[in-house]
Amino acid sequence: AAQFNSYCTLKLQNVKSTTVTVKGANPCWEQDFLFETNDVNTGLLIEVWSKGMIWDRALGYNYIPLTEVQYSNEEGSCQQWLALEAELVMRDGEVVGTKNPTGHSLLVDCRFELPFVSED
Amino acid sequence: AAQFNSYCTLKLQNVKSTTVTVKGANPCWEQDFLFETNDVNTGLLIEVWSKGMIWDRALGYNYIPLTEVQYSNEEGSCQQWLALEAELVMRDGEVVGTKNPTGHSLLVDCRFELPFVSED
Repeated sequence: AAQFNSYCTLKLQNVKSTTVTVKGANPCWEQDFLFETNDVNTGLLIEVWSKGMIWDRALGYNYIPLTEVQYSNEEGSCQQWLALEAELVMRDGEVVGTKNPTGHSLLVDCRFELPFVSED
Repeated sequence: AAQFNSYCTLKLQNVKSTTVTVKGANPCWEQDFLFETNDVNTGLLIEVWSKGMIWDRALGYNYIPLTEVQYSNEEGSCQQWLALEAELVMRDGEVVGTKNPTGHSLLVDCRFELPFVSED
């Protein structure tokens, strides 16, 4: 099997965060990212890339519509295995989903943080 | 003016290369990238990103259809200033262009390399 060096990017609207690059066929990133948005009709696009010497190659995508994201302040409470898919589904120039499963999947804990409320 | 740290990504089909990150409001990357393709009906998507501590922000995009790329082995012979635009234009899930100029532009030398022919 080829030696993989892979990383993820997370995109919300015109903002992007990137994980570190991790070796191996079963990479584990365990990184937390925080995004802010005022538009619930958009979503989080997760891309998994294989890092190469010259080129990086897309391994798959998953899109989480924000309308499907639950509220929780408990870490790990919203974990789900997401299918990594080969193609983006677009509407009016925006990603709205993905299609064509690659057979790979990605464990993601995606949630809305509740505002902090003082219990005084 | 905000201090920019910016970099470009170049995407062709499912392959991507990234420049180094350069400081300043008039960044200059001066990097060469080589891509291979067997499909002239696709194009090169160039993205310019502003690197942040937590998030990177897209500054603009330009898409060069391969049908508009000339053949030349002379470096600098195909330089052109490309408008950086705010939005992608998609068709059937593929980028086919960009729209809404941001007022910024990017100098790019994009060409097809001719095969080497021995002059024996």
